Amino acid sequence: MKLIRLIYASAARTEMSYAELTNILRTAEAHNGQQGITGILCYGGGMFLQALEGERAVVNALYNRIIADPRHEQCEILRYGRIATRRYDQWKMKFVGIDDPATAHRRDLVLRHSGTSNFTPLQMTGGQASALLYDLSHEFRIAA
Amino acid sequence: MKLIRLIYASAARTEMSYAELTNILRTAEAHNGQQGITGILCYGGGMFLQALEGERAVVNALYNRIIADPRHEQCEILRYGRIATRRYDQWKMKFVGIDDPATAHRRDLVLRHSGTSNFTPLQMTGGQASALLYDLSHEFRIAA
Amino acid sequence: MKLIRLIYASAARTEMSYAELTNILRTAEAHNGQQGITGILCYGGGMFLQALEGERAVVNALYNRIIADPRHEQCEILRYGRIATRRYDQWKMKFVGIDDPATAHRRDLVLRHSGTSNFTPLQMTGGQASALLYDLSHEFRIAA
Amino acid sequence: MKLIRLIYASAARTEMSYAELTNILRTAEAHNGQQGITGILCYGGGMFLQALEGERAVVNALYNRIIADPRHEQCEILRYGRIATRRYDQWKMKFVGIDDPATAHRRDLVLRHSGTSNFTPLQMTGGQASALLYDLSHEFRIAA
Amino acid sequence: MKLIRLIYASAARTEMSYAELTNILRTAEAHNGQQGITGILCYGGGMFLQALEGERAVVNALYNRIIADPRHEQCEILRYGRIATRRYDQWKMKFVGIDDPATAHRRDLVLRHSGTSNFTPLQMTGGQASALLYDLSHEFRIAA
Amino acid sequence: MKLIRLIYASAARTEMSYAELTNILRTAEAHNGQQGITGILCYGGGMFLQALEGERAVVNALYNRIIADPRHEQCEILRYGRIATRRYDQWKMKFVGIDDPATAHRRDLVLRHSGTSNFTPLQMTGGQASALLYDLSHEFRIAA
Amino acid sequence: MKLIRLIYASAARTEMSYAELTNILRTAEAHNGQQGITGILCYGGGMFLQALEGERAVVNALYNRIIADPRHEQCEILRYGRIATRRYDQWKMKFVGIDDPATAHRRDLVLRHSGTSNFTPLQMTGGQASALLYDLSHEFRIAA
Amino acid sequence: MKLIRLIYASAARTEMSYAELTNILRTAEAHNGQQGITGILCYGGGMFLQALEGERAVVNALYNRIIADPRHEQCEILRYGRIATRRYDQWKMKFVGIDDPATAHRRDLVLRHSGTSNFTPLQMTGGQASALLYDLSHEFRIAA
Amino acid sequence: MKLIRLIYASAARTEMSYAELTNILRTAEAHNGQQGITGILCYGGGMFLQALEGERAVVNALYNRIIADPRHEQCEILRYGRIATRRYDQWKMKFVGIDDPATAHRRDLVLRHSGTSNFTPLQMTGGQASALLYDLSHEFRIAA
Amino acid sequence: MKLIRLIYASAARTEMSYAELTNILRTAEAHNGQQGITGILCYGGGMFLQALEGERAVVNALYNRIIADPRHEQCEILRYGRIATRRYDQWKMKFVGIDDPATAHRRDLVLRHSGTSNFTPLQMTGGQASALLYDLSHEFRIAA
Repeated sequence: MKLIRLIYASAARTEMSYAELTNILRTAEAHNGQQGITGILCYGGGMFLQALEGERAVVNALYNRIIADPRHEQCEILRYGRIATRRYDQWKMKFVGIDDPATAHRRDLVLRHSGTSNFTPLQMTGGQASALLYDLSHEFRIAA
Repeated sequence: MKLIRLIYASAARTEMSYAELTNILRTAEAHNGQQGITGILCYGGGMFLQALEGERAVVNALYNRIIADPRHEQCEILRYGRIATRRYDQWKMKFVGIDDPATAHRRDLVLRHSGTSNFTPLQMTGGQASALLYDLSHEFRIAA
Repeated sequence: MKLIRLIYASAARTEMSYAELTNILRTAEAHNGQQGITGILCYGGGMFLQALEGERAVVNALYNRIIADPRHEQCEILRYGRIATRRYDQWKMKFVGIDDPATAHRRDLVLRHSGTSNFTPLQMTGGQASALLYDLSHEFRIAA
Repeated sequence: MKLIRLIYASAARTEMSYAELTNILRTAEAHNGQQGITGILCYGGGMFLQALEGERAVVNALYNRIIADPRHEQCEILRYGRIATRRYDQWKMKFVGIDDPATAHRRDLVLRHSGTSNFTPLQMTGGQASALLYDLSHEFRIAA
Repeated sequence: MKLIRLIYASAARTEMSYAELTNILRTAEAHNGQQGITGILCYGGGMFLQALEGERAVVNALYNRIIADPRHEQCEILRYGRIATRRYDQWKMKFVGIDDPATAHRRDLVLRHSGTSNFTPLQMTGGQASALLYDLSHEFRIAA
Repeated sequence: MKLIRLIYASAARTEMSYAELTNILRTAEAHNGQQGITGILCYGGGMFLQALEGERAVVNALYNRIIADPRHEQCEILRYGRIATRRYDQWKMKFVGIDDPATAHRRDLVLRHSGTSNFTPLQMTGGQASALLYDLSHEFRIAA
Repeated sequence: MKLIRLIYASAARTEMSYAELTNILRTAEAHNGQQGITGILCYGGGMFLQALEGERAVVNALYNRIIADPRHEQCEILRYGRIATRRYDQWKMKFVGIDDPATAHRRDLVLRHSGTSNFTPLQMTGGQASALLYDLSHEFRIAA
Repeated sequence: MKLIRLIYASAARTEMSYAELTNILRTAEAHNGQQGITGILCYGGGMFLQALEGERAVVNALYNRIIADPRHEQCEILRYGRIATRRYDQWKMKFVGIDDPATAHRRDLVLRHSGTSNFTPLQMTGGQASALLYDLSHEFRIAA
Repeated sequence: MKLIRLIYASAARTEMSYAELTNILRTAEAHNGQQGITGILCYGGGMFLQALEGERAVVNALYNRIIADPRHEQCEILRYGRIATRRYDQWKMKFVGIDDPATAHRRDLVLRHSGTSNFTPLQMTGGQASALLYDLSHEFRIAA
Repeated sequence: MKLIRLIYASAARTEMSYAELTNILRTAEAHNGQQGITGILCYGGGMFLQALEGERAVVNALYNRIIADPRHEQCEILRYGRIATRRYDQWKMKFVGIDDPATAHRRDLVLRHSGTSNFTPLQMTGGQASALLYDLSHEFRIAA
């Protein structure tokens, strides 16, 4: 059982509405539950940053479909590798919005891990993206 | 005194009833107490995952008998090695059932350490199996 | 300049003829020279194993096109990560055939790094695939 | 592809003749070639020490049959674990006799790695057995 | 996104008044907010010690301007390197005065990290300067 | 005695002629010999990549003058830090041209350490620039 | 000042009575206080396990006398080496009995660090004996 | 700024009275405050053990004067080296007496780090002396 | 099989003649060959330094007899511990004399590892004694 | 036996003539041979740099005398610590002159390890001084 985590960034072809994002997540959750995929998805300023965890073959099959999705482009893997333990196993796919003015503290986390407080994940290193996603998830974690 | 821990997985030839499992454990506890073997045994979906701790010769003699037991097949060692200290010394053989609907949180632990929440230990790496058994045992540990 | 190496395996939809493979390589070499991509491609028994080196964005753009190529399926990344230095910089894309009876020593290398001497890269770990490609390349390296 | 190496020792129920040992090896070579198993087998003073390399499931299936073989007893695993690369891939099953007076230097290797020059592998640690087998194999290795 | 931290020391050509320092900081904060620069600036006894964090190109462009500023001289980099995470991301540019008699505890920190309690940053190693700035910032940090 | 190595890249405002480069080097050698500075300077395609070694205060004073030199712009430090031993102590300032068609092997070294064989040092990481300079210097080293 | 810790095991020639053990300890405490020796002595089932701490020459002189004591035999050093700091400095010689039914928890500690709950220190490794003595001493430690 | 810590031991030519020790300390504090030296001085049974922290040149100049002081002899450095941070920066020179019957716990610390509870620092290793001084200082530390 | 190496030093009660030393060695070789003990023995200036290798119980039984031998006194263990592999397996007990004027180079080795060229092994650390014995044995080693 | 190496630098009060240096060395060699001290002494431009190896008490007694020698001043220890093995055991005190025009290659070594080719050991770190002395000694070493 080759468990991996894949983190990628991409650019939406057009800005996503709330309805479209909800639709993406609903599909993801249904699919991921069956396939044993867990993860987190961030969206902001027309950019996606997503972590996928699960079996190597399953995550790759999903990533191959994600690449083919016409709603985004410039898919680029930031980090990929074997993991001892899942990090996002509390969620089939947790969504975190970066744009919402009510959650300005999330932009502070963006600044901590990148060049400015603008969310530009395609410019980030794997380490920066991984740390940002982890910091963003703390707001939602249920204590073990 | 060569202390080792051996973790193996196997498949029951037919699904085990509660009575059969109880019988296996009663025999194991009687034998293990005399032989200085400690450990943990998980059963779910017709699959076994077991850790045995004790002297190298004693654990091997037991494993040789386990292999010959007609109630299961496909015995496969997942991890084996010298240990500094026992990890399951509170129990002659702790039993943990995975199937019981009342303990769904155990399936969450399965998901954390494998590809899905289905218990398929023959697919797990030694590290995944070892971590899963350790996490499962926390529910029962008595604080030192 | 985020230099990475991506190693993936895939299955040809139908066995490739020598002419088809030559065609693939000619296209790859022309493209890779412009884009600064270097690497190695193995083919045997209807399976591909390939390493791509270059800038992160360029390698990802190429991999996204590779996934969409209808001549193969089950594309699966075996290893991906930042590299300090290229390993295959002597070649725009070195081709190594595994099937040729005249090069049986290559199957010995397959055996050294996998379960049998059959070339089944989709079953390999990233470490096994990486070591196999490196061993296979020694036959062709020009001493520095 | 979970490659492992398993090293075990055992005691022959009766001293093996040259013909019996040849018979064992012929069977092993035929089986191992199909299954992708490589290794080395030492025999001396009625004791066996053997290393098996290959896929985890295949090596375990073979070890389960070995345990059931009535020609020996006290099978005990000395070392078991994931390997990056095979160490004995030049041989389907290399045989090394310890008793032959013409090869007294092999008993010097036994002394280097154990308490006396008597071959008593069931008393050895995994590290001692692994180093002894490796040293014994050097006599036969073909330079790469 | 190459995040770096640059720490430099320099000597004011003439002692700075409170008004001049305020002026420098106001300019810095306005500029840094746009450019994603964070940091800390210490002044005492006519000497500056400053840490700048941000993208490599942006921090260098700023440092090139700083060097050209006629209000100080002997600009010398004490430490420079990639960082995983910002350390001063709570501030566009935090100011800490060393001279103020009301904050004698800051001179105790100077003594801890240098030869005397006199603030002579041009004599400090990169490690000493980095640790002093970090210790000085604790007084102002907001718990996360 | 705080010995450091500073590696920076910059862009010439206009392409440098051979005479201009010779002039820069003659000045550098005269200055560096007096100041104990050693190093290596590469030029190609209008870009500079230079390593400076010496005492911290001396190297910084030189770098401050270099930044102010109107013949180039976008000066950016790629790596900076304490060194145990000089690496370029055979030269006051070794010059290596990248553009010369007679030395195409130097562009192969550029490819090994960056995204393409084009010399774009402002895009390189500190590690890539440091390794490239070191590889380029081997052509000229006198055996110790 | 070469501080060492020596841990040895031995077998009483005849079972020791409580009076005899008390006598041994009284002599040890008087001697050790003068010589700067500290330590712990366990007795159970006719077996001794003892740790001695102090100057190398002093501990060796004591051990040479211990070996000559006719009340026990088979003296065997389990661990010996330089120590940074004493571990049993609260006691000239702490006595811990393993046989007393009122302290069954001590036999649980024996099981944690050896093959069974029987106290057979001559079979233990140095690491097992050291960890067992340390665990046994916790019952008596006075918080610092 | 080369910060160092120097620990030395020496023997008083004649036992020091309380008045003499007070005199030594008064002089030390006056001098050390000006020179940026911090440290700790232990005296017991006619032996000194002292740690000096500060700039390398300053500490050496002081140590050269200490060696020339006729009140003690056999000055011997036990430990000397660069330090990242001062350990005794709360004190210009903290005095700790070992002889006072009211502070017997200090002799327990001597025992923990040396052969007996007699204070014989000239016999101690650098590590033992350093750990003893650190343990002795805890009694006086003001929480940060 | 717990292989250990024990290094001890001791003082002869009276200077040993060549005949006495030869007698000691003849007895040692006869005994050691049966017991699987290997090692090296140095004698000079009335002092012994010896390394013993073999099974833990066997080496301890021998050391217990050595301590009781009236021809020497002050037996002190300098180093003791588990070994992966014997270092002196070419010899049942190699003798190296330090006093012989014809082998002055051996006193140079003594100087390298101790305070003077006088052979005073009771003053040496375990590391010094181990390195000295190893250096002394090189003169006699047969290339493998 | 606490073997140490002490490296110090100092300034001659007046430039030393060849006769004076010869005199110093003759005295040193006579003394060092008796005391088991080995080392290396460099002189150039009125500055000394010396390494002393031997027992801790002996080296300290010698250093205390060196400090009191009126022919030099500003004695400063650059490095001091326990050593496993002597580095200069081929010489009672090797002399290396830095000023001689016939040995300009020695000034190249000075440049490699310090700010300029001027010999200013009081400015060097312990690491720089240690490496310089080691490099200077290679000219004189006799192959082992």
